[in-house]
Amino acid sequence: MTKVAEKNTFPNYPAGILHLKRLGIDTYQEPVVYISKDSEVCRSEGFGAQSRVQISTKTSNIIATLNITHDRILKKGEAGLSEAAWRLLQAREGEPARFAHPEPVESLSHVRAKMYDHTFQPEHLQAIIQDIHAGRYADVHLAAFITVCGGDQLSLEEIDGLTEAMVRVGEKLTWPVSPVVDKHCVGGLPGNRTTLIVVPIITAFGLTMPKTSSRAITSPAGTADTMETLAPIQLSLREMRRVVEKEGGCIVWGGGVHLSPTDDTLIRVERALEIDSEGQLVASVLSKKIAAGSTHVLLDIPVGLTAKVRSPVAAAKLIQVLETVGQRQGLKVRALITDGSQPVGRGIGPVLEAREVLAVLRGESGASEALRSRSLLLAGALLELSGRVELGKGLDIATAILASGQAWKKFQAIAEAQGGMRKEPKLSSQYQDVASLCKGRITCMDNRKISRVAKLAGAPEDKAAGVFLKVKLGDRVEPGQPLYTVYSESPGEMAYALDYVALHEDIITVEQGK
Amino acid sequence: MTKVAEKNTFPNYPAGILHLKRLGIDTYQEPVVYISKDSEVCRSEGFGAQSRVQISTKTSNIIATLNITHDRILKKGEAGLSEAAWRLLQAREGEPARFAHPEPVESLSHVRAKMYDHTFQPEHLQAIIQDIHAGRYADVHLAAFITVCGGDQLSLEEIDGLTEAMVRVGEKLTWPVSPVVDKHCVGGLPGNRTTLIVVPIITAFGLTMPKTSSRAITSPAGTADTMETLAPIQLSLREMRRVVEKEGGCIVWGGGVHLSPTDDTLIRVERALEIDSEGQLVASVLSKKIAAGSTHVLLDIPVGLTAKVRSPVAAAKLIQVLETVGQRQGLKVRALITDGSQPVGRGIGPVLEAREVLAVLRGESGASEALRSRSLLLAGALLELSGRVELGKGLDIATAILASGQAWKKFQAIAEAQGGMRKEPKLSSQYQDVASLCKGRITCMDNRKISRVAKLAGAPEDKAAGVFLKVKLGDRVEPGQPLYTVYSESPGEMAYALDYVALHEDIITVEQGK
Repeated sequence: MTKVAEKNTFPNYPAGILHLKRLGIDTYQEPVVYISKDSEVCRSEGFGAQSRVQISTKTSNIIATLNITHDRILKKGEAGLSEAAWRLLQAREGEPARFAHPEPVESLSHVRAKMYDHTFQPEHLQAIIQDIHAGRYADVHLAAFITVCGGDQLSLEEIDGLTEAMVRVGEKLTWPVSPVVDKHCVGGLPGNRTTLIVVPIITAFGLTMPKTSSRAITSPAGTADTMETLAPIQLSLREMRRVVEKEGGCIVWGGGVHLSPTDDTLIRVERALEIDSEGQLVASVLSKKIAAGSTHVLLDIPVGLTAKVRSPVAAAKLIQVLETVGQRQGLKVRALITDGSQPVGRGIGPVLEAREVLAVLRGESGASEALRSRSLLLAGALLELSGRVELGKGLDIATAILASGQAWKKFQAIAEAQGGMRKEPKLSSQYQDVASLCKGRITCMDNRKISRVAKLAGAPEDKAAGVFLKVKLGDRVEPGQPLYTVYSESPGEMAYALDYVALHEDIITVEQGK
Repeated sequence: MTKVAEKNTFPNYPAGILHLKRLGIDTYQEPVVYISKDSEVCRSEGFGAQSRVQISTKTSNIIATLNITHDRILKKGEAGLSEAAWRLLQAREGEPARFAHPEPVESLSHVRAKMYDHTFQPEHLQAIIQDIHAGRYADVHLAAFITVCGGDQLSLEEIDGLTEAMVRVGEKLTWPVSPVVDKHCVGGLPGNRTTLIVVPIITAFGLTMPKTSSRAITSPAGTADTMETLAPIQLSLREMRRVVEKEGGCIVWGGGVHLSPTDDTLIRVERALEIDSEGQLVASVLSKKIAAGSTHVLLDIPVGLTAKVRSPVAAAKLIQVLETVGQRQGLKVRALITDGSQPVGRGIGPVLEAREVLAVLRGESGASEALRSRSLLLAGALLELSGRVELGKGLDIATAILASGQAWKKFQAIAEAQGGMRKEPKLSSQYQDVASLCKGRITCMDNRKISRVAKLAGAPEDKAAGVFLKVKLGDRVEPGQPLYTVYSESPGEMAYALDYVALHEDIITVEQGK
C-alpha cells in the first residue's frame, strides 16, 4: 500500500559480508560470533552485544550469539567464530559469510505459553526440539525451556511428546533381530560400572545389546571413560553397527553416534541450573534407547541419601513414569531399585574402576563382591525381561556365564572389534592414604564427597587418578587404619584433594563406640 | 573424623594464580573469563568450558563463566577477561588473580523451589537479588529466575518482596521535601517524549521531580537518548542531587546513577527471552521510583493493538497491581490509560523527537498538538496527584505554565544545570519520502513497524536518523502523497530501511474507498 518515491538516489547496498576466522575459543555448545565494534556489519545491522545473528555461507547457516570485540583480536573484514559455531557452520578459514538478523524463533512462543500453564502439544515439542537441534536457541532460551519443564510440570503426554521429538531429530538404528536389550543407570553412584560386566554376559548369552554410554560430566568417571582405558570407544554409527553385527553388542561413547543429539544440549544447561527435571530425565533416558533401536530396557535406580534418587517413594514415582512413557513408545521398561547408600566396589576413577571390572570378569579372588553381585543381579533381570529366560532363572544363568569365562572372552572380543584391547591400565605411583582418627564403625559414606575427592585428584582427565576405598558401611576400624587411598598424577592435584579431605570430616563417617 | 596419614610428601601447592589481561570482548553484562586449555589452573581445578569460576584479586572478587581458549590469544600464565568481568573486578592489566571453584549459589535453591510451586518469601527474593547484584548468577540462572517469575506466577506479596529487594541492593535517595513526584510511561509508543515537557512544567510549578530515564534498548530512542541531543544526561548521583536541589528537577540517564541496579540485568535477559512478566514489570518500575525517593507516581499506560499493553482489560489488571504494590511500599500511584493506537507526535528518533519537544515548549505554531495535549494531560494529573492542586484544576494550571513560557525557561535552566544546553540539533540532509500508492483513509499505524523503520535508518546510534510522520489516523490521502520521511546518515542504512519498507505493506495502512 506504500511506495518509495522515485527520488531514491541510493544504490541497493550489499548486505554485510565478513570473512570467517576460527578464534579457538570454546564456549561449550553455544555458538558465539565475535565482530569488531567498528565493523560496518555491526553498525548497519544495528547489532549489539548478545544480539542473535544469522551467519550464512554458501553451504550452511547458523544462528550465533554476538560478542563485540574492542581490541585487535580481529582484522578489518574478519568475524571470529567460537569452536561450536565453527563446527556447526562447517566453516573454512577465510570463507566469506553474510551476517543478518535471524528470523524470530517461532517455537519460543510455546515456551512462553507454558509459563501461562498452557499444555505442550506434540507438535509444539517437535518444533522446539527441532529449533534446539538447529542451534536456534541461545543458552538463555534453553534455560527458559528447561525451567518450564522443571519440577513435575510435564504431564505423561508431554513427556511422551518430548521423548518422541528428541528421537525424531537424530538418527534411529534398526536391527534385524528382536529383542534388542539395554540397561541404564540413573546416575549418582561412584564406581557403578556394571555395564562393562552386564554387556558381555548378555551378548555371550546371544542377545543383542548396542550399548552407548556417556563420558563423565560432573562425576569422576563415566562408563565411556572407564571403557576407554581398555579399548577405543569413539566409534561412528557405522562402526558401531559393524561391532554389534559381529559381536552382538558394544560399549561405545554415545557422543560419537548422535543418537538423540539434543539430549547433550539439554543436559548441559540442566547441570548449569542444577535442575533435576523428572520429565527431562525420562525423555533423556528413553529417547537414547529408542534411537538405539532397543526393545527391552532395564533401569538401575540406586536409592540413597547421597544418590540422585533419595527415597523409595521418589524412585517409585519415577519408575511409574518411565514404564508408562516407555510403553507408549513401544518399549518394554523394567526398573530395579538398588542400594545407593555407598559406592559400588572400591575403585573410583577410570583406571581404578577398570581394574575392578577386569578382576570380576576374570573371576579373580580379590574381585569386588559388591560389583560382581550387582552386575549379576542386573544381567539376570535383563535376561528375564528379554523373555528368553524363564522368570527366576536369570541370575543363575548370568552367574554361570560369568563363572565359565564366556563373559571375559566376549568382553575381549568386543574390545577387539572396537579397535583392540589395550594393555592392562596401571595405577598411579603417587598415592596417599587417608586414615581414621578413631576407633569405631563406618556409618555413612557420602557418594558426592567421595566423588569430589576423586575429581580433585584429577579424575577423569587423569585416567589413573581417583580414590580406592578400603572400607564399606558397617566395617569396624581402628585409629590410624586407612579408610581410602587417593591416587593422583600431579603433586598439585594431590594437594587439592588432600586439602579438601582435611576440611571435610563427613566424607566417610566413623562413629565412635559403635 | 579422618586424618591424612603422615607420609604425605607433597608440599602444599599454591592455588592457581594467573595474570589478568583485558581482552576487549563485550559479552554484555555476563562476566566471562578466558583461560588456555593448557593452563595448569584448568587442569588442577578441573575447570571445563562454561564452568563457573571465582576470580579473586587482592581487592575484589567475582564469579565468571569460563571460556577455554585453544589458540594463542593468551600467553602462558595469562587469563583474559571480558569487558563486564574487567569492570566488575576493577582489574588492572597484568594483575595476579587466584582462580578457584566458587561457593555454590545458595539462593538458586529458591528458584528451583518456585518450579515446584513453592512461594517466594521476602528473604528468598532478597537473597536472589543480592546474588544477582553480586554477579553470582550466570545468564542461564537469570533466565531460569525470570522464567519462574514469568506469566502471572508472582502473587502481590511476591511482587512486593521483589520490589523491596531490588530497592535494597542499590542507592536510595532521600529529599528534605515532600511530595516528590515522578511519572513513567509503560513503553511501547514511538515518539512519546512527554517527560521532557512534563518535568519543566511540574518543577516550574515548584514541585520536586528527580527524573531518571533509560536509553533505548529495542526502540529507536529512549527519553535519555532524546534528552542527550539537548543536554548532558550522564550524571553521577551526586551531580543529579545538585541539579535537583538547584532546579527542583532533572532529566538524567538512569544507568549512571545506579538506582535499582539489578533492573537492567533482569531487563536484558527478559528481552532476550521476549518474556513480558507482569511481576517483573511492576517491580522494575516501582523499585526505580522508590530508590529515587519519590512519593507520588503517575503512570502513563498507552493501550493499543501494537503498543505494549494491548487491551483495556490488561491495562486495568496491571494498574491494580501497580497501585496495590505501590501502596504497600508507601508510594501513591495513579495510572492513566492513554491512546496507544499510533505514535505520539510526528518525529521518531532522538533529534526528530527533540525538535518536536522544543516546538511544544516554545509554543511554536507548527508544534505537534498530540504531543502538547498529552503532555499537558499528564502534567495536570500529576499536579492533582501531588495534592498541591485541587482536583479538576491540574490541566488548566499546566496549560498556563506552558503557555507563559515558564516551562521553556525551566527546561533551559535544567539543561544548564546538567552541563549546558546544546546547540539546536540538526536534521540529516539525507532523507527519503515514502508515499501512498492509492487514494483512501489512514486506518492503521503499526507502532512496532514504524519503530523498525526508524531503527534500520540508524536510530538511536545516529541521533539524526529516524522517521518523520506526515499523516495520522483518519487522514485522507491521495496517490503519491507522502506518508512519512525516512532520515538517515548513511546510504547503507537508508537502503536497509527502504528495503524493509518495500517488503512490508502494513506499516501504515491506507484503506481505499473510505
